[in-house]
Amino acid sequence: MDLHGDFHVYDTTLRDGAQQEGLNLSVADKLTIARQLDGLGVGYIEGGWPGANPKDTEFFRRAAAELDLKHARLTAFGSTRRAGVRAADDPQVAALRDSGASVVTLVAKSHDRHVDLALRTTLEENLAMVRDTVGHLRAEGQEVFLDAEHFFDGYRANRDYALEVLRTAYDAGASVVALCDTNGGMLPDWVSDVVHDVIDTTGVRVGIHAHNDSGCAVANSLAAIDAGATHVQGCINGYGERTGNADLVTVVANLELKLARSVLPPGLLGDATRIAHAVADVTNFPPASRQPYVGSSAFAHKAGLHASAIKVDPDLYQHTQPERVGNDMRLLVSDMAGRASIELKGRELGFDLSSSPSLLASVTARVKELEATGFTFEAADASFELLLEEMVTGARPTYFEVESWRVITETSPLGEAVSEATVKLRASGERHVVTGEGNGPVNALDQALRTAIGQAFPEVVKFELIDYKVRILDQGHGTDAITRVLIETSDGESSWVTVGVGHNVIEASWGALVDGLTYGLRRQGV
Amino acid sequence: MDLHGDFHVYDTTLRDGAQQEGLNLSVADKLTIARQLDGLGVGYIEGGWPGANPKDTEFFRRAAAELDLKHARLTAFGSTRRAGVRAADDPQVAALRDSGASVVTLVAKSHDRHVDLALRTTLEENLAMVRDTVGHLRAEGQEVFLDAEHFFDGYRANRDYALEVLRTAYDAGASVVALCDTNGGMLPDWVSDVVHDVIDTTGVRVGIHAHNDSGCAVANSLAAIDAGATHVQGCINGYGERTGNADLVTVVANLELKLARSVLPPGLLGDATRIAHAVADVTNFPPASRQPYVGSSAFAHKAGLHASAIKVDPDLYQHTQPERVGNDMRLLVSDMAGRASIELKGRELGFDLSSSPSLLASVTARVKELEATGFTFEAADASFELLLEEMVTGARPTYFEVESWRVITETSPLGEAVSEATVKLRASGERHVVTGEGNGPVNALDQALRTAIGQAFPEVVKFELIDYKVRILDQGHGTDAITRVLIETSDGESSWVTVGVGHNVIEASWGALVDGLTYGLRRQGV
Repeated sequence: MDLHGDFHVYDTTLRDGAQQEGLNLSVADKLTIARQLDGLGVGYIEGGWPGANPKDTEFFRRAAAELDLKHARLTAFGSTRRAGVRAADDPQVAALRDSGASVVTLVAKSHDRHVDLALRTTLEENLAMVRDTVGHLRAEGQEVFLDAEHFFDGYRANRDYALEVLRTAYDAGASVVALCDTNGGMLPDWVSDVVHDVIDTTGVRVGIHAHNDSGCAVANSLAAIDAGATHVQGCINGYGERTGNADLVTVVANLELKLARSVLPPGLLGDATRIAHAVADVTNFPPASRQPYVGSSAFAHKAGLHASAIKVDPDLYQHTQPERVGNDMRLLVSDMAGRASIELKGRELGFDLSSSPSLLASVTARVKELEATGFTFEAADASFELLLEEMVTGARPTYFEVESWRVITETSPLGEAVSEATVKLRASGERHVVTGEGNGPVNALDQALRTAIGQAFPEVVKFELIDYKVRILDQGHGTDAITRVLIETSDGESSWVTVGVGHNVIEASWGALVDGLTYGLRRQGV
Repeated sequence: MDLHGDFHVYDTTLRDGAQQEGLNLSVADKLTIARQLDGLGVGYIEGGWPGANPKDTEFFRRAAAELDLKHARLTAFGSTRRAGVRAADDPQVAALRDSGASVVTLVAKSHDRHVDLALRTTLEENLAMVRDTVGHLRAEGQEVFLDAEHFFDGYRANRDYALEVLRTAYDAGASVVALCDTNGGMLPDWVSDVVHDVIDTTGVRVGIHAHNDSGCAVANSLAAIDAGATHVQGCINGYGERTGNADLVTVVANLELKLARSVLPPGLLGDATRIAHAVADVTNFPPASRQPYVGSSAFAHKAGLHASAIKVDPDLYQHTQPERVGNDMRLLVSDMAGRASIELKGRELGFDLSSSPSLLASVTARVKELEATGFTFEAADASFELLLEEMVTGARPTYFEVESWRVITETSPLGEAVSEATVKLRASGERHVVTGEGNGPVNALDQALRTAIGQAFPEVVKFELIDYKVRILDQGHGTDAITRVLIETSDGESSWVTVGVGHNVIEASWGALVDGLTYGLRRQGV
């Protein structure tokens, strides 16, 4: 199967992935992501298009000085030379040559119509562009991969020409020719047939670059690999233009865990979840919770039906062990779950509810009651734990009594508006009146509340609000709508999520903030 | 291929889809979604599990009176009878029988280990449960489908038993036996082999129910159909537990547009985008922008490279015409796009920039300048249009001059906190000082602003803020962070999106609100 020995796992998040709507990466972001991808053990990181994109030129410049990759090789992406100009004289080709990358991936047209209408040149000249540019960069000492753009559409329109482009690149010294489903419209069986034909007819070393427009990017990649491709391109978290590139972690996890193909350095797949989420933090796109393998819901079980079986044997309901990709199994508490889920959740949090059926029944009833008013405990373990403690011990932990709070945001003649909150509370027998400022009402309230409590409990100084989610629950349009807020608080080492509900978003946020600090103090053993 | 004539498109959003983490549907929500699914022309809508889930019992009761489905048949889901009890005496089976649904889908264990450990009964009794329950419901006049739970894992563990479950159901009168990849771990080639074997060996009519744990739910569904399945189960928008069910619209669009299979009533696929987004509004889960076919980014083109080719022929860069699924091609303005994208975008909005290269150059420069400070025009067409107007005519449309604004949220001894905003501005020569209230600071400001402007321009009365998105752009941690706000305003007929940027989230929101109203007034021809 591996005609050529090693298998290439090739990430193009920093180039093709960056074409996703709304994705804007700074050079610093790109360097950070490159290090994260290297931690996963990918073989190649396509860093961008130096020369064409000023940000990317800067990236390669800084990468040469600052990036110390342990596993991956940095590749520079760019197109074949312009028509009618020698590769050696083309400044954009020079930028690739001078990028410092040891590998260059050249994109070339392999669809005759694109050569005609987009490049506006002849089929012969396009082949010369391929031959000349690949040959030039090889002679200058770089390894070259070729991305055959629109390959599958080109193969259908003019099979002979498409294959000729591949041969030309390969004969000129390209080590891999990646067949790109640029428009993303292929289906797996079609990909398989084409890859078989390409390999049988030309003998080139084939790669696959799939997009998800038919919802089959992962399957198309696997089909190509099964047909003999030994190089797969994709993006972590499936980033990319339109519907995205093939999700590289999904492809790799399938290869390693289901197809017994060893494509990453040993042991690194177990960091996949951590790394996928870390990259998502940098891109500022919240990771899709339903994402295969690494999504926060990927191993989260809700239905009461499943939860009772999981008590018996987790493998009965999971297609693989979550630890193999660094993920966790989670049991969700919700109104769909029966007592089995709540009992298991309680146990997970350190409460043994199995010995007291009536307590379990009242906890279950209270959960359903609160959920009917808009609370959710599914994603708010800390709030659920406070609830359990209240019902098991008879008293909810309390560290302070709030008198009042208010927050004002107003325009300033000096510049931007500032938010200012005043909180009045009693803690440890003393009354505190504190004003805090922030870049928004919730931030200002958080500052004021923590400063006020911090006078009695210094532990809160290191707490920090690190995530904030708002959802409007449409019980009816307009003033009826309930707002639910989820807040994630961190103490620098770990983090916890609390929930707040109300008609007013600031009121709901306040509830989650108070719970978050209460829980945090509880954890500290105060 | 169609041994049995018609092909079944079967949606289980209201049952399996509802098991998605965070998804909570009221009975009213379910009725609304059922009507929406019917509008797409699906053949079957699985409404829930009456008898086991009180909300679902209520749904079926109300459906009988209120749902008038034109295309779909409502199905009730439930399990085979309990071990050791006759189907005719089992109250949960009675609930299915009495649900009013003309079709019942029974879930049965087909994996021997599940029969043993989860059901805690014998393999023979499980077959009797299948035979008895299917037979009973058939005798009572309902059509019966069987969901063979964990079928593929069961087939691998004990092929003979798994096939025996299918035969038993079919012989007892089930019209379809749906093979469920309950844990979602299958890959397309494996599914194909199993489906071929099932059909060759038993001759049953096969359905497929795939989950996306391997990222191959759509491909697995297509593989099964290619191997002879004539019934496909999935969820609109790919809802479902863990990684979700197969995205039913993706499957259907692939069948109709790429595989020449007519599976929906003619003409209805063109409503897919509208319906997918409408269902997302009800579930309160924002639709995934990268979703195949119906996602807002599915046909959105960003790279300057592509935009210049699209000017020539859209089919060069799209795998299908967006209109076939009711979607649109969009060109994104961003710092990755060159002048080609901005020129095309300008033309889309009614500005001809091609005649003035220096104007195009300064617009492009201004866009990049603003994007460097945090603005994005990609999703904010209305703000981009105001910018173009400012640069083309030399003046930005202005309808009012703001003096100041402030918003206060404070606790009330009477109940929840209330937000109150005061806006001072001049419009049409008069000064207005208005106070508005709301369920949050931005809502209160919006009320005050529109009331203030409404005194000079009554047109704004019908404007409504319908969507609000906040993103923190991490230029550095803490006080440096820029907030970007996108606001969608509607006048009841159409809607537009504006963007605001600032260090303070309320300041950023204010900017987007002002642009939103300005643009709205401009549209009205004021």
